[in-house]
Amino acid sequence: MKIRTRVNELFGIEYPVVQGGMVWVSGWKLASAVSNSGGLGLIGAGSMKPELLAEHIRKCKSATGKPFGVNLPMLRKDSDDLVKTIIDEKVKIVFTSAGHPGKYIEQFKSNGITVAHVVSNLKQAKKAESVGCDAVVAEGVEAGGHNGPDELTTLALLQIAAPEISVPLIAAGGIASGRGMLAALALGAEGVQIGTLFAATEESSAHENFKNALVNAGERDTVLILRKLAFARVIKNEFSDEVIKKEFAGVGEETLKNILGQKREKLGMFDGDLKNGMLEAGEGAALIEKISSVKEVFEKLIEEYESALKKLNGFSS
Amino acid sequence: MKIRTRVNELFGIEYPVVQGGMVWVSGWKLASAVSNSGGLGLIGAGSMKPELLAEHIRKCKSATGKPFGVNLPMLRKDSDDLVKTIIDEKVKIVFTSAGHPGKYIEQFKSNGITVAHVVSNLKQAKKAESVGCDAVVAEGVEAGGHNGPDELTTLALLQIAAPEISVPLIAAGGIASGRGMLAALALGAEGVQIGTLFAATEESSAHENFKNALVNAGERDTVLILRKLAFARVIKNEFSDEVIKKEFAGVGEETLKNILGQKREKLGMFDGDLKNGMLEAGEGAALIEKISSVKEVFEKLIEEYESALKKLNGFSS
Repeated sequence: MKIRTRVNELFGIEYPVVQGGMVWVSGWKLASAVSNSGGLGLIGAGSMKPELLAEHIRKCKSATGKPFGVNLPMLRKDSDDLVKTIIDEKVKIVFTSAGHPGKYIEQFKSNGITVAHVVSNLKQAKKAESVGCDAVVAEGVEAGGHNGPDELTTLALLQIAAPEISVPLIAAGGIASGRGMLAALALGAEGVQIGTLFAATEESSAHENFKNALVNAGERDTVLILRKLAFARVIKNEFSDEVIKKEFAGVGEETLKNILGQKREKLGMFDGDLKNGMLEAGEGAALIEKISSVKEVFEKLIEEYESALKKLNGFSS
Repeated sequence: MKIRTRVNELFGIEYPVVQGGMVWVSGWKLASAVSNSGGLGLIGAGSMKPELLAEHIRKCKSATGKPFGVNLPMLRKDSDDLVKTIIDEKVKIVFTSAGHPGKYIEQFKSNGITVAHVVSNLKQAKKAESVGCDAVVAEGVEAGGHNGPDELTTLALLQIAAPEISVPLIAAGGIASGRGMLAALALGAEGVQIGTLFAATEESSAHENFKNALVNAGERDTVLILRKLAFARVIKNEFSDEVIKKEFAGVGEETLKNILGQKREKLGMFDGDLKNGMLEAGEGAALIEKISSVKEVFEKLIEEYESALKKLNGFSS
């Protein structure tokens, strides 16, 4: 089955499926595999210094002739340098997040770069559209990793945002099946961004322990932490228990910063310390049954989408 | 457009749309209007003594010849008496919540009553199915009022539960448009339960102030409170601010119980005290533009569903 929306046109891809840029997880290997499977792969610059990002971009170009992009969390202190790398290496697609969508838009556009921006509410979506972003990713609170503070779910956010936004809308957060993808398009999105499901693929650069933790995670195994500091959804472990206990005991930001400041993301997701690391994952982790190849993930997604659409049409007359 | 699933068959209704039973909001007037419009109206017994419930059941029967039901929160201390009333008054459909689904199932089934049970995770859904419930309502954390503690969103919960449950699944939480309804059925549900949207109708028994608060609520105006005591989503106000401040300051349950114990739900939703009352509402409140009649709500829902389905089909070939 072919699924074609404005998102396919915008990025020149076969399926309107974007692989979310993830720290420590989505390097050139994952991004190129996604692009080679017909989606849009994104290199996650959030955990890379400019030189490493340049290396990943080059390797990605060698591994695929198809479109790919870079995810840029703009809160990075060296984000100017990362932007320079992106432009120097002639990347053609950028997904920005965690910052004002207008920050680099002129630089990007004048270099022929297509820009999408990740938001967690309609207000931000309108802002992204107004500054000239080509697409908007609307991400609900079921997403893994860092989240907006409003706790809008993907279902609510898409219902609210879709009628108000003219540029193509990409749904993110909790989508881990073809049924989820069909629901996103039913809500008015024209594409999906999927993170957690791709984190558990063979091509992801996550530590094997973390991939297995994603496979083993059940429906009640993720939790929101650090509400006031760096709001994020993670797999429950000793680290998250400690943080939550302290949060609800009313400790100050400094204490939380000290707990967090121990490179917890790398520790958990790249080094595989499941006890003390920060294991960013969305609620969709409960749907992951095994570590698959990216190709298998795509085949299953599209097959499920097709059969769910058939079932859905069977309800109407 | 006709939309027909096993939910229509089970309850004998025209559209697979259930109006959620809500304290102080859904009496006979709302329930009968929903049933007369082709959905399934539910009288919310949670805020009624047995005699009042009996009165509402009788009035509902006078107002509609179509199927309607009663929602029974089983944590009520006098729930045995409410069950007796339900059976004595020959109600044919019951939605149970907040308790073990097997508690009254034999009594209900031996009286020819169709039973659905509200759950917030797959484990509970399997339990409800195993004790003999005829349908399961899977409710995500975007729902208004009391919520399960796992914070699974409707999108995640439905993706997880649908493949594992054989009886008809009804999606609840955050659904406030025809696009939301289409998404729910795309995810594998065969019906939707809608609360907040109906709370703001002409036929709802909510105070006018509360209805207006629902109309005025924006996307960032609901919040989760009372995580450890009586987890609920409400419209932000002085009451919710106070509770959250205390929750995150680590106060004991007794203090929270004292704040809550001032009949906050009635105060907010029935008496219309928007400052000190508890204003239960889901994230879908942001989609409510005006106080409509139940009939108008249905017309809009079905019209939106139809046009969203057409658009969705346009993406495929």
